[in-house]
Order: sequence, then C-alpha cells, then structure tokens
Amino acid sequence: MATPLHIVVLAAGQGSRMKSSLPKVLHSLAGQPLLHHVLEAGRSLRPDGLHVVIGHGAEQVREKTPGSDIQWVIQKEQLGTGHAVAQALPGIPETARVLVLYGDVPLTSADTLARLAGAISRESLGLLTVNLPDPAGYGRILRDSRGTVTGIVEQKDATPEQLVITEVNTGLLGAPAERLKQWLPALSSDNAQGEYYLTDIIALGRSEGLGIEVSQPDEPEEVQGVNNRAQLAELERWFQRQQALTLMAGGATLADPSRVDVRGRVETGQDVVVDVNTVFEGDVVLGDRVQIGPGVVLRNCRIGSDVRVDAQSVIEGARVDQGAVIGPFARLRPDALVGRDARVGNFVEIKKSSIGEGAKVNHLSYVGDTTMGAGVNVGAGTITCNYDGTSKHHTTIRDGAFIGSNTSLVAPVTLGERSLVGAGSTITRDVADRELAVARGRQRNIPDWVPAENGRDSEEGGS
Amino acid sequence: MATPLHIVVLAAGQGSRMKSSLPKVLHSLAGQPLLHHVLEAGRSLRPDGLHVVIGHGAEQVREKTPGSDIQWVIQKEQLGTGHAVAQALPGIPETARVLVLYGDVPLTSADTLARLAGAISRESLGLLTVNLPDPAGYGRILRDSRGTVTGIVEQKDATPEQLVITEVNTGLLGAPAERLKQWLPALSSDNAQGEYYLTDIIALGRSEGLGIEVSQPDEPEEVQGVNNRAQLAELERWFQRQQALTLMAGGATLADPSRVDVRGRVETGQDVVVDVNTVFEGDVVLGDRVQIGPGVVLRNCRIGSDVRVDAQSVIEGARVDQGAVIGPFARLRPDALVGRDARVGNFVEIKKSSIGEGAKVNHLSYVGDTTMGAGVNVGAGTITCNYDGTSKHHTTIRDGAFIGSNTSLVAPVTLGERSLVGAGSTITRDVADRELAVARGRQRNIPDWVPAENGRDSEEGGS
Amino acid sequence: MATPLHIVVLAAGQGSRMKSSLPKVLHSLAGQPLLHHVLEAGRSLRPDGLHVVIGHGAEQVREKTPGSDIQWVIQKEQLGTGHAVAQALPGIPETARVLVLYGDVPLTSADTLARLAGAISRESLGLLTVNLPDPAGYGRILRDSRGTVTGIVEQKDATPEQLVITEVNTGLLGAPAERLKQWLPALSSDNAQGEYYLTDIIALGRSEGLGIEVSQPDEPEEVQGVNNRAQLAELERWFQRQQALTLMAGGATLADPSRVDVRGRVETGQDVVVDVNTVFEGDVVLGDRVQIGPGVVLRNCRIGSDVRVDAQSVIEGARVDQGAVIGPFARLRPDALVGRDARVGNFVEIKKSSIGEGAKVNHLSYVGDTTMGAGVNVGAGTITCNYDGTSKHHTTIRDGAFIGSNTSLVAPVTLGERSLVGAGSTITRDVADRELAVARGRQRNIPDWVPAENGRDSEEGGS
Repeated sequence: MATPLHIVVLAAGQGSRMKSSLPKVLHSLAGQPLLHHVLEAGRSLRPDGLHVVIGHGAEQVREKTPGSDIQWVIQKEQLGTGHAVAQALPGIPETARVLVLYGDVPLTSADTLARLAGAISRESLGLLTVNLPDPAGYGRILRDSRGTVTGIVEQKDATPEQLVITEVNTGLLGAPAERLKQWLPALSSDNAQGEYYLTDIIALGRSEGLGIEVSQPDEPEEVQGVNNRAQLAELERWFQRQQALTLMAGGATLADPSRVDVRGRVETGQDVVVDVNTVFEGDVVLGDRVQIGPGVVLRNCRIGSDVRVDAQSVIEGARVDQGAVIGPFARLRPDALVGRDARVGNFVEIKKSSIGEGAKVNHLSYVGDTTMGAGVNVGAGTITCNYDGTSKHHTTIRDGAFIGSNTSLVAPVTLGERSLVGAGSTITRDVADRELAVARGRQRNIPDWVPAENGRDSEEGGS
Repeated sequence: MATPLHIVVLAAGQGSRMKSSLPKVLHSLAGQPLLHHVLEAGRSLRPDGLHVVIGHGAEQVREKTPGSDIQWVIQKEQLGTGHAVAQALPGIPETARVLVLYGDVPLTSADTLARLAGAISRESLGLLTVNLPDPAGYGRILRDSRGTVTGIVEQKDATPEQLVITEVNTGLLGAPAERLKQWLPALSSDNAQGEYYLTDIIALGRSEGLGIEVSQPDEPEEVQGVNNRAQLAELERWFQRQQALTLMAGGATLADPSRVDVRGRVETGQDVVVDVNTVFEGDVVLGDRVQIGPGVVLRNCRIGSDVRVDAQSVIEGARVDQGAVIGPFARLRPDALVGRDARVGNFVEIKKSSIGEGAKVNHLSYVGDTTMGAGVNVGAGTITCNYDGTSKHHTTIRDGAFIGSNTSLVAPVTLGERSLVGAGSTITRDVADRELAVARGRQRNIPDWVPAENGRDSEEGGS
Repeated sequence: MATPLHIVVLAAGQGSRMKSSLPKVLHSLAGQPLLHHVLEAGRSLRPDGLHVVIGHGAEQVREKTPGSDIQWVIQKEQLGTGHAVAQALPGIPETARVLVLYGDVPLTSADTLARLAGAISRESLGLLTVNLPDPAGYGRILRDSRGTVTGIVEQKDATPEQLVITEVNTGLLGAPAERLKQWLPALSSDNAQGEYYLTDIIALGRSEGLGIEVSQPDEPEEVQGVNNRAQLAELERWFQRQQALTLMAGGATLADPSRVDVRGRVETGQDVVVDVNTVFEGDVVLGDRVQIGPGVVLRNCRIGSDVRVDAQSVIEGARVDQGAVIGPFARLRPDALVGRDARVGNFVEIKKSSIGEGAKVNHLSYVGDTTMGAGVNVGAGTITCNYDGTSKHHTTIRDGAFIGSNTSLVAPVTLGERSLVGAGSTITRDVADRELAVARGRQRNIPDWVPAENGRDSEEGGS
C-alpha cells in the first residue's frame, strides 16, 4: 500500500487588502470561490485526507464550501503558516505524506500538484519553486554547485549575489507527517511578524539530512496568490485566456479570445462559432455548428446543432433543439425547451414552456407555463396570463394553432389544433380544434373627432 | 502672502490631424472635453488667475466650457506658443508666477502640477521633463556634469551624443511674470515654422542666471498630447485603466479591468461586483454588494445595497433602492424610482415613476408618469397610456393592486388598494379599493372556421 | 506588351488542426473566407490568369467562392506545394510570370504582392521573406557577403550559425512559367514527408544562374498562415486593429480600438463617434456626427448625419435618415427606412416599413409592412398584424395620425391623416382622416371582488 496522502489547505486568512466583508478564499474566480479551485485541484490527487484550516469568517467559509470529504480545522489565532498546519496535524496519521496548499492560490494545476506530491517521502521534502523575471519580495532558492537545494533566503536577509537569483519559493510544499509532528511544535516565532513560518521546515529538513525535491509549475500564474482585487482580476484574465485556448484547441472559432468568459464548463461540438463578449456560466453544451453572439449570456443550457443564438440574448436553464434560431434580444428562462427549427425572436421571454418543432414566437411575447405544439405561430405581443396572484396556471396550444397579435391567453386554457385566435383577443375559454375565437371590442369610427387646426383632444399613447 | 499663481492654458490650435470640425480641445476623453480635464487639474492649485487662450473655434470653445473663473484670451493668429502666452500677459500681474498648460495635454495630475508650480520663483523657472524609452522627435534636456539643466536641444539640432538622451521636454513650464513680460516680446520667429517658441525662455532664463528647476510626472501618459484620434484612444485607454485600478483598490471586483468604462465619477460600496462591458457615465453611486452586468450602462444613478442589475440593462437618472432586481434588458429612464426589493424585469421601461416596495413589473411593460404602491403586481404587456398627443397624465396604482396582463391604463386614472384588473382590459375609469375591473370584448368561438386541409383564411399575427 | 501574370493559389489542404468539417480556406476572417481575402489581394494585380488549386472539400470550396475569373484546378492527391503548382501549369502559357499564393495566408497586402510580382522576370525569381524575432521552425534565408540570396536552409538542416538568422522564407514566391514547367516535374520527394516542395526551385534557379529578387511585407502578419483556431484568432485581431486604425485615421473617434469589429466595409463621415463593442458587418455607411453604441450591431445599413444609435441596438439592411434617434434596444430589420428626425425607441422592431419624418415609435412595438407618414405618434405596445398565416398585408398610417397604446392594427388597413385610435383598440377597418376609432370592451367595475383578508381569487397576470 502506498503511503497515504493528506492535503492541508490554509484558508484562515482575512485578506484585509481585499477590502471586503467576505473571507478572502470565498472571492470568486471564474464564478467559483478561490477555495473551490484549490479543493478541485487537490481532489484530483485522490487524497486520503483533505483538511481545511479556517479562521476568519470560518462559519461563512464552511457554509459556502460543500464537501463531505473535508475535515474542517479551526485556527483560533492567526499565528502564521507553521501554526496553521500544526492545527491540522492531530487529524493526520504519522505515516502520511502531507501536502500544504493555500486557499488564496487558486490555479495550481493537477499536474503540478501531482509532481509536488510525488516528491514527498520519508526521506525527502517536496518544494514547489518558480522562476520569476522579477523576484523582488520573494524568498530566493539557494542551491549548491551541484544544483542541490540548500535553503531559502528571505529578501531582507539576502546578499546582493542572492538577490539576483530568480528562482523563488512558492510556499507550496510537502513533508512526511512524522517530521511535521516533530518540527512544527519546535518552530520559532522570533521574527518581525511574530509568526511561525512553515518555510522554516526546509532548513530543518536539510539539517536533518532529508532531501529537498524541487518541482516547478508549467506557468508562473499557477502559484500566484490573490491579495487584492487587482491580483484577482489578473488571475481571472489569465484563467480566461486558458479557457479560450482550450475552446479553440477543441475546434471552436472565437472572434476575440480576450472577450469570452467561461465560468464553468463548456462542451463544444464541431465548428462552433462564438462572437465577441459571450459569457458562459455553469454547464453549457453546444452542438455542432452552433453560432453564438455577440453579447450573449449562456447559463446552464444545452444548445443543439445548427442553432443560431443572435445578439444580446440571455439563455438560462434552457434547452434549444437542432436548427432553432434564438434572438436577437431573446430571453430563455429555466425550463424553456425550444424545439427543432423553432424560432424565438426579439423581445420574447420564454419560461417553463415547451415550444414545438418549427413553432414561431417572433416578437414581443411572454410565454410561461405553456405547452406549445409543432408549427404554432404566435403573433407579436402575445402574453400568456399564467398567474392570478396566487398560483400559476397552464396554457396548452396544440399543433398548427395560429395566435393573432396582441392576444392575452388567460390560463388555464387550451387552444385546439389548427385553431385560430383573432388579433387583440383576450381568450378565457378553451378553443376547439379548427375553431376561430375572437374576443375584442367592436370598432366604432367617429368622424371629424380631430379638429383640422387645433391640438389633440383626448386619446392615449405612451411617451 | 504667497506669490500669486496664474495659469495660462493654450487652447487655440486647430488640430487638423483630428480631421474634425470640432476644435481639438473639445474632443472628449472619458466623456469630458480635453480642456475640461486640464482646467480641473489646474483648478486644484487654486490659481489666482485662469487664462485660456483660444483661437480656432474660439466661440465654440467658450460656449462648451463653463467657468466664471476663466479669463478668455483671443489669439487672432496662431504664431506659436510664445506668442500665445504673450496674449495672456496683459491680464497677469508682474508679481505673479505663471504656469503654462496645454488644452490638448489632458491628463497631467494635480500632484505633478503642484510640483511644477512649486518650482517657479523670482529666481527660477519650473520645467516639466519626462524620460521616454523612445525620445525621437522631442527636444532633449541637456545637463552639465553636476546634473544642472543647461538647455534644451531640438531633435534636428542634436548631436549623436545628444540624440541618445532620453529625458525630453514636455512643454509644460512656469516662469515669473516679470520675466515673461520682458522675454516674450523679444522672442525670435526665425525658424522653420516662423513661430515664436515658448521653450526659448529656458535658454533666456539660463543666460540671465535663473535656475531651471526640473520636475517629472509620475507617469509619462500625464504629459502625452493628443494630435490625432489614435492618440486620443490611447490616452482614453490609459485613463480607463487608472479608473479600473482605482475601483479595484476601493474594493470592487471587476471581471475584466480592460472592459469597464468610467466617464464621470463612480462611488462604490463594499464588495461591489462589476461584470464585463459595464459603462458608467456621469455620477453613479453603488451601495454595498451591488452586482452589475454584463453589458450594463449606468448614467447618473444611485443604486442601493444588494441590488442586482442584470445583463444589458440601461439605467439613466434613476434611483434603485436596496434589494431590488433589475433586468436583464430593463430600461430605467430619468426619475424612475424603484423601491426596496422591487423587481423590474425584461423588456420593461420605467420613466418618471415610482415603483413601490416589493412591487413587480416583470415583463414587456411601459410604466410612465406613475405612482405605484407597495406589493403591486403588474402583468406582462401592461402599458400606462400617459400621453394624449398634447399632454402627459398621471397614473396612480395603490398598494397591493394586481394588474392583469396586456392591460392598458389610460391616464389620468387611479387603481385602488388591492384592486384587480382583468387581463386584456383597457381601463379608462378609476377602480376603487378591492374592486375588480374588466374591460374587454366577449369571446366568441366559431367552429370549423379553419378547413381541415386548406391554408389559412383570414386572421392576423405579426411576422 | 508586358509579360502576362498568372496567379496560382494553393487551396487544397485539409487543415486537420482546425478540427473542422470545413476546408481550411473557407474559415472566416472578418466575415469572409480566408480564400476570399487571398483572391481579393491577388485580383488587385489584375492577373491574366487566376488558378485556384483545390483538393480537400473541393466542391465546397468552389461553391462558396464566386468568381468567373477563377480557373479551378483539382489536385487529387496532396503531394506537396511543388506538386500542387504543377497541376496548374497546363493552364499557364510558357511566357507568363507565375505568382504562388496560399489560401490559408489571408492578409498579404496588395502592395506586398505587387513588389513580389514585380521581381519576377525571365532571369529572376521573386521571393518574399520576413524577419522574425523568433525564427524557430522556418527555413532561413542564406545570403553571401554581398547580401545576395544563395539559398534557403530548413531548420532541421541548419548549422548553429544559420539558426540565428532571423530572415525566413514565407513560401510566397514567383517564377517564370517556362522554368516552372522545366523544374517542377524534376522535383524530388525524397524527404521526410515524401512531398514535392516548391521551395526547392530557389536552389534550382540559383544553380541555373537566375537572380533571386527578395522583397518583404510591411508587417509580419501579412505572411502569417492559419493552421489552427488560435492562429485564426490572432490574425483576426491583427486585422481588426488595422481596421480600427483606418477608422481613426479617417477621423472617427473609437472609445476602444480593441473593442470594435469590422467585417466588411465601413464608410464614415466627419466626427463619427463609436462606443465600445460595436460590430460592423457588410457595407455600412455612417454620415457626419453619427454616434453609435455601446454594444450596437450594424449590418448592411446606411445611417444619416447626426443620427444617434443608442446602446444594444441591432440594425440590418435598413436606412436611417438625418437626425433620427434609434434605441436603446431597437431592432431595425431589412427594408426598414427611418425618416429624418424620427424616433425608434426601446424594444421596438421595424421591418420592411418606412417611418415618416419626425414620427415616433418609442416603446415596445412591432411595425411591419407599413407605410407611416410624417409626425405619426405610435403608442407603446402597438402591433401591426401583418400576417394572416398565409400572406403578408400592408398597413398605411398617414401624416399626423395618433395611435393609442396597446393597439392592434389588422392589415390591410389604412389610418387617415390626423386620425386617432383609442388605446387598447383592435382596428380592422380603415379610419378616415381626422376620425377617431375605438374598438375595445366596455369597462365594468365589480365592487368588493377582493375580500379584505383572503388571497386573490381569479385574475390574470404574467409572472
């Protein structure tokens, strides 16, 4: 049996430079709290224990972080990283390897973590370092002439020669639990901050003859921490560039890779084309030859092949079947289901309704709680009146029905196959198959109502 | 008493490379004419005199530039910067310090100007210089071995050794008025352009034993001039990046700092989140935890805490109270007031109306000149008919009223508390408290209107 | 008579790294297939023959590529560039100069091609090279001490000294047809790919004493090929930056040059202002002082002087006359014609209709197949019911008519001059000049319908 792996995630900090009432690790990157990104990467190693050390805003962090695999550890006082890891040690068996991650370093890849974890053994510590063009402020990695790591020197203690070293400490490291249990209680807080620094174990390990196995991330952004909103935005943008590259590598055309946002998972078919400023949230599936945008928001939806979603549309929780055309300015809300080759046009809202194959709701309509058959034509300005102030009611519109414009359908109501509703009608009773229903006032024309010269008299528009 | 400070702003140029019928200094950066930015920075020094030299489009510039503190100076012919400053001298007392700014150099910071002004005295000129990686085209600053400025050499007159100097003249400078009054009339126009160059006073000052006190801006963009639209766009983008950094430093999360535009002043509460492509114009105040976007336009409005403004909404001159939800696709126009926890949904326009606490106007409605109470529910497709072609009339909807869908409310009209209006009604008379009002045609169903096989006969949708 | 010029465009490749079912040369850049860009540049030389070599997806490429001047050449097997050009030779006279372009190198400028073509003669080959900061992977250009090109060495065959050469082969070249007819059949495919390389003719030409006349593009992007979607996006962005620079040089203000897309041709008048995220497609003409945006889509339309198109509007195939104001959230569809100083407001769709001078359609309306006179006021929520399920019918609204809100106009129907339609009416018969028409149900108020304490009883909104 392999040595068990336990991961300790430090998530107790306040993050005062965020100027926020939210604990730092709960700030969102790509729609997910920073901490979730760290946990997701950590879980890819299938650890035997996942310990999250919390302190500032502990209750909030727990509530917002689902996961039965998490062992929550409270750090009552924030006395440094060494102290934080020490709080988690009682829950970790002596035989384990321990990998330490940070809740505010969100984008370390699974591969990088695997390399780091793989370096930990009873005889060696794992240390993640990175080369930075501008290493100012970071602890420099010291190596001897054979390249063996001999220590870490902090910026303030470094000699001029050491200051030019560009390989720096990321803070991510791993060690055998038995050693941590021995070393952490012995750490000193005799420094400017009065804190116990986890980094000091590197020197301890070295002095006791353990090896220091160094690995590096593929990209420096993987080990970038978030201390303020500007850094958060930088990581967001880097992450989004990766998402865009992934979409393009998968065969999607992006009009502008720097103007697409993916906050969740997007699955794309072949020859998908995404115009500028599209925002994806949650789980989105796009079929082959789907065309999106510009300015479209897609959240938790499934878009069939050959669908076109035109400018500025907002789709959430909906399914759109093959060949349908949506928008511009269409809004599909949860449980909207738009059938094959159907058409949902401008200023149309669809909620909890199915639109049949080839049906058309082209303009200025609200369709809610409705089952609509195939080939139905819904005129401009049609409203399903589904709410009576207390409950919602259902509307049924059967195949081939034709609804005139500016019509109100007072639910519950059923319109039969190939039935016809006159424009401007308010329909309160069912209409049978092939029936015509009209419900509107009789037209009266009153001559010479408007004097030839004067202003208007009395009627009513909107302005 | 301190020496008085007079500022002269040169704003007479045509800016032919802008290819515009607008004087160059009236072109907008971040929603304000270039000249306004210069005046705003200049005023931060609380000058004793603010002289603006105008020439091309003089009338247009005066009209578009409010400010009773401005002394307008007409330069009839554009004979160079020295000539321009000379036109302003008669209005400046001999004892003053004179600071010369440029109407097309819009983004010099108040701090930079204060340093420059502070260097001017009876015995010294103030000169603003900047180090540019590529100094080509600019006058180079010559210094002796002790670092004292000895002169400025123009690009065309520079030796190869001088050409590698990266410290260049910005044109911004200051001098005692008594000296200017002596020197400017003596300037020569014996050069390729036949113009009188203000810069020549540096050599004059030096020859007469005055000191040259040099200061520098914090960022080179502060002294960047605008000569064409590409430069205008570059400065706009730099300015917007500074705005984004300021918002983030204040504790706002920006999904993409390069996709936010601030054209005015934005005040943000704690934990504001701004999605991509938001545009702020005028004075905007956002409370705590406000969420905006994507694609939202906010102009002169006040958004309360915990408000969410969804995608693509446009809000102008409105106030939205705590907890309300706006959009997507909502339009709030001037004097819209949306109460606490109210809801304004998609394809809804609100103008000069107050929406009561918890009221809902969720879909496809126009509400204008209306006072709406708490808890009102406005059905989809409701229109307040506020205009009779001559004047606007008011609609009053009292607490708890329920307006059915596709209803027309012909103002002036009042709907009582908890009153009810049937869907599809056109309401022309007041409705009392708890009354039900219905005004629609009776429904007639005509069987077998549609033949089973043929095409449609006669009714009416939109397509 | 000048030597005839024949252009051979290689467009037979599959482009497997595009992961597409579309042949690579049909992928779009700025709204046009890559191949169209190449053909457009090629045609600027007025060639005597334009040969396009196709293979993968040959039928698709032919169908999507109009042009009676094109001679299509089928390359049955893809055996390399030398083989591809050889397929075209039978259609090229011996006396011609032959210029070889690539269907996946879309952005070579006409000037660059003219220089390259001008270098070809009976005694010389033309070769386009480019200097790349990172030449890795490209064939290096070898020159002797006098600068004469002596050959091309591929990356894998290069010595360390040759590897530092930054001048590389672009693949674009030209040669006299008589030589190509002699050389191409003699090429060897004795290389790793087993292909016949066109580049080998440089060595052949050199060995036979021909000159190698080298020219270079103005920008390296001109010779960048497209092999995957990321490269496609890079070229798209570079092309769009050029478009933005062109617009600005022509006197347009762009709020953000990196957030404008031009997919076609835009003609701008003086002092046009384009806000962020505007997308232009097809042929768009903007008059003087037009203001656009943000978030506007303009496709094949003509916008008159002093028009303002507000946020998020979508205009396609329409004409808007001087002084009109459109949007926000307006949709103009093909054959919409908006007259001088007219107003089309939010959530309004206009299709195949003319809106008279000064007319107003301000809110939530659908106007289709309509002729509207001057000064008409269309109330909010007005719908022209132009479709009866079989055919479209016309609506005529004469000068000065006033249409109340929430009105349905059932076409064919005519509203006379200064006629008046009551709010909420469904108009099915013509209305004469100055007539008032009302068609709505009578209002009944039913007291105490709503119990003071209980919930709602029966009426209908949308939610």
